[in-house]
Order: sequence, then structure tokens, then C-alpha cells
Amino acid sequence: MGSADRVKEGFEAQGLMRTLGAELGLVEEGVCHISLPFSNRVTQQHGFFHGGVTATLADNAAGFAAYTLMTADRQPLSVEFKISFVAPAQGDALEARAEVVNNGRRLKHVQVHVFALDAAGGTLVAIALATIASTTSVA
Amino acid sequence: MGSADRVKEGFEAQGLMRTLGAELGLVEEGVCHISLPFSNRVTQQHGFFHGGVTATLADNAAGFAAYTLMTADRQPLSVEFKISFVAPAQGDALEARAEVVNNGRRLKHVQVHVFALDAAGGTLVAIALATIASTTSVA
Amino acid sequence: MGSADRVKEGFEAQGLMRTLGAELGLVEEGVCHISLPFSNRVTQQHGFFHGGVTATLADNAAGFAAYTLMTADRQPLSVEFKISFVAPAQGDALEARAEVVNNGRRLKHVQVHVFALDAAGGTLVAIALATIASTTSVA
Amino acid sequence: MGSADRVKEGFEAQGLMRTLGAELGLVEEGVCHISLPFSNRVTQQHGFFHGGVTATLADNAAGFAAYTLMTADRQPLSVEFKISFVAPAQGDALEARAEVVNNGRRLKHVQVHVFALDAAGGTLVAIALATIASTTSVA
Repeated sequence: MGSADRVKEGFEAQGLMRTLGAELGLVEEGVCHISLPFSNRVTQQHGFFHGGVTATLADNAAGFAAYTLMTADRQPLSVEFKISFVAPAQGDALEARAEVVNNGRRLKHVQVHVFALDAAGGTLVAIALATIASTTSVA
Repeated sequence: MGSADRVKEGFEAQGLMRTLGAELGLVEEGVCHISLPFSNRVTQQHGFFHGGVTATLADNAAGFAAYTLMTADRQPLSVEFKISFVAPAQGDALEARAEVVNNGRRLKHVQVHVFALDAAGGTLVAIALATIASTTSVA
Repeated sequence: MGSADRVKEGFEAQGLMRTLGAELGLVEEGVCHISLPFSNRVTQQHGFFHGGVTATLADNAAGFAAYTLMTADRQPLSVEFKISFVAPAQGDALEARAEVVNNGRRLKHVQVHVFALDAAGGTLVAIALATIASTTSVA
Repeated sequence: MGSADRVKEGFEAQGLMRTLGAELGLVEEGVCHISLPFSNRVTQQHGFFHGGVTATLADNAAGFAAYTLMTADRQPLSVEFKISFVAPAQGDALEARAEVVNNGRRLKHVQVHVFALDAAGGTLVAIALATIASTTSVA
């Protein structure tokens, strides 16, 4: 099974992605995009996408982007991430675009930009930097 | 309306908290706890709580902890947060416990510990540090 | 005085930059580079550049990159930064290259790559993401 | 050699600490304090302690706090840190107080508070959260 198939399998096994209604997009070596259509199910108190949802997409896209660079016996494990919110997350959909910027053997560093998409195009709403471990253990 | 009531009102207006099944716990000056029972709705691919859920509880508890220290004309806005995952998030429930550690006028800094709870007690699973702005605007 | 001159003036007024022996490099709209030749004055216990020096260059380049986008009545103030160390900082010199990635009115977000330079070229040693406030006050 | 002696030896081998004039303070299991008297050698452009100095003390105290919990064949390696600046760093001295909050086998998480000290007492100026690896390699 190629790395894109492993990402797809992992994504589909996540209860949270189904609960939120997230969709897996582009998957390439070192890259993963995840999007989420707007609904009342994912809002904060003013009707925008909740910051936790923005962070969730960023974290998940980062983990899967790192996963594309791992051998089949390895799993991604989020060590930490930092996210800066730069604009309100308002639009028809959110899309997290993750790219590995340092492909270390044990630790991979991934940069993520999250965009709010609407008919007029995309607006950058958050920037994240994540550290993903390559591990043989799932816990 | 006191600050605890404003937190409750804000929490109940968040579609995401209902979607996840999260519950508001202790709310005091500078403190907010949010918990979430385990279910298949909030998992990653190995059946643990998804890291995005851990981050969501941390971010939300931080925002509401900061909100308790704001006057009624102000709203909390997440500027950024950083979260370190220190143990697998496995248990009957997650609980994020947020406390304001610096009560600046414009920016409040909030520390959050997230615990996995089971019959044996609680295990620290994540540590977060968040910056919450006090703003008159919701976007 | 143009923004590049204001950056130069600010840089030269910093006692720390003289103490470390740092040099101001490229300054353009939204961009600032700062470099530092290796010496025993800036080492950690194994003879590499100290991580604090790497972080200092990153923070300072971020602040000045943001300063280039401010009007003359404004000053940069570091709100926070996060830095990931991705390789040992070993070489003839360090160079921090900062670029504003979100030019908000109050808060500017700056990405920094720090490279170790030697005869063979440059190696990425750290990645930072900084939040710089535009303020009228210096304290 | 006990862990406090190893910390002292490591600290004294750092060229940067001598260059800045930093002093090692309290060293206990999981704890390390480092202080720095004010001088023109460590300033930013308005005459306060430079944010890079604040970050350097935080990073270094974190690494040594983690080192106290390692066996003699291990070395601390900074993986990443995040620092929030909460007040101007102005006073007679800075003191970073680091405490290990999660003592993982491979990764230790350390919280740091940095205070500005003067005759009137101490003011919190920065909060940091660091990830320190326990490694057998120095590079």
C-alpha cells in the first residue's frame, strides 16, 4: 500500500473526521490538505468556524503530511504544535494545507496554512508549525 | 449577568461543543474547566481521543478562563496557542483545566493542563499556553 | 528616514547585538536578515552556537522585518515566538532570515528560518514563528 | 558527579553565559534558576533587557532543569520552545526559573517563568514552555 493509500486509510479510521464532516484533499510526498464545509456543527459562539476546528484540521493535515514520508512500519505522533490565528475563520469551507519543511528521521517539522474559502477565493486564517514524531508505537 | 453566566451562555452557543458532547465544568475568576466523555465520535485512527479534540478543549477552556476576567462589553479572541502532547489521550473522559497566569489588559495568558480521566484517576496528557485578546469586536 | 534606516538605527542601538557581534544584512519591505560569525563567545557546552543565540537572532530579525512595515510613529514589540531546532547549529556563521507572512494592523506574523553557513553552503537549523505587535509605546 | 555538579560544569562550559554575565542559581531535581544582572551589554534599543536574552535564559534554565533528571550518559537537547512576553523586562536583574512539568523518558517538558527583579521585588516578564530531549549524542 502506497503512502497516499495509508493516509486515506488512517483518515477514514478517525471518528472525529466523520463527526466534523472533514474531507481529505491533496496527498503527495510531504503534503496533505484537509477541508471542511461550514455547518452549524463546527461553530463558536459568533457563528464562525471554531478555533478548535481550525487547529484540528491543522494538526491532522500536519500528521498526515509527515506520514507520507514514513515507511510502512511507522506511525505519526503529534509531539506539539503552535497555531496563530490571523483572521476570523468565516466562509463556505476551511482548508488546511500542510507541508513538511524539515524531514528529520525521528522528528518531522510541518508548516500549515489554513484558509477560509468562499466564492471570492481564499483568506489565510491561521498559520501553524507542528512537530510530528515517527514512531513504531501507537501509544 | 455575572461572568460565570456569560461563560455558560457563550459555551451553549457553540455548535462545536454540542457536536463533540463537551460539558462545561468549574468556572471561577480566571479559571475554566471543560470535559468530554469518550466516544467513537472523537477518536483518531487508533481509538484514542484525537489530538485535535485535546487542543479544542484546551483552546476553549483558555478563552473562557480569560472571559471571566473581562467586563461585559468585551469578548475573548484566541490570538495563538501552543500545545505539547505528553501522553496518549486514553480514558473515560478528557478534562481541560485552564487558569489565567497573566491578566493583561489587552492580552491574557492562560495555562491549560489536559487530563485523561478513568477509574484510577487522572493522567496529564497535554500542556498548553494560550494568548487570548480582550476585544470589543467579534471578528 | 526610510524604514531601512530606522531598522539600522534600532539595530545599532541594541547593546546585545554589539555584545554578540551580530551584523544586520538584507532589509526590505517585510524582510530582515541578521547574521553572526562563530566565536567562542556564543557557544553552548559542546562548542556549537548556543540555542539562545539562534533564538535571539530569530526574534530580532522578526521584530525588524515587522518594523519595516510600520509607520514612523510605531515600534515593534515581541508578543511571543515559537522556535523549533531542527539541526545542530554548527558552522562559520548563523543567519536568520525573517519574512512577514501576515501583515495585520496591530499584530504582524513573521516566519524565520535560521541557517548555519559554511564553505559548503547553508543548513537549516531552526524555524520560528513570531507575533510582533505594532505599538506606540516602548514599554 | 551528581546532577547539580554536572549542571554547573555544563553551565561553565558555555561561552555565551560568560559573554552575557549570567549566573547559575538554584539547582535541584527538576529545577534550575539562572540570573543575569542588568548591563548595557544585554539591551534592546530602548534600554531594557533584550527579548533574546530573556529567551536565552529561559531556554538554558529549561535544558539544565531537564538535565538534573537524566543519567550521566545523557545530554539535554532543546527540541523547541515557545515564549510569551508579558511585561517589559526592566530591572536590576532577570531571573529564569525552570521546572520540569513532565518527566518523559525521551522528551521532558519544562515550564519557565522569567522575572525582572528590583528593590521592590519581582515582576513576571515572560512565560515559556520547552521540550527537551534526553539524548546520547551531542549533535
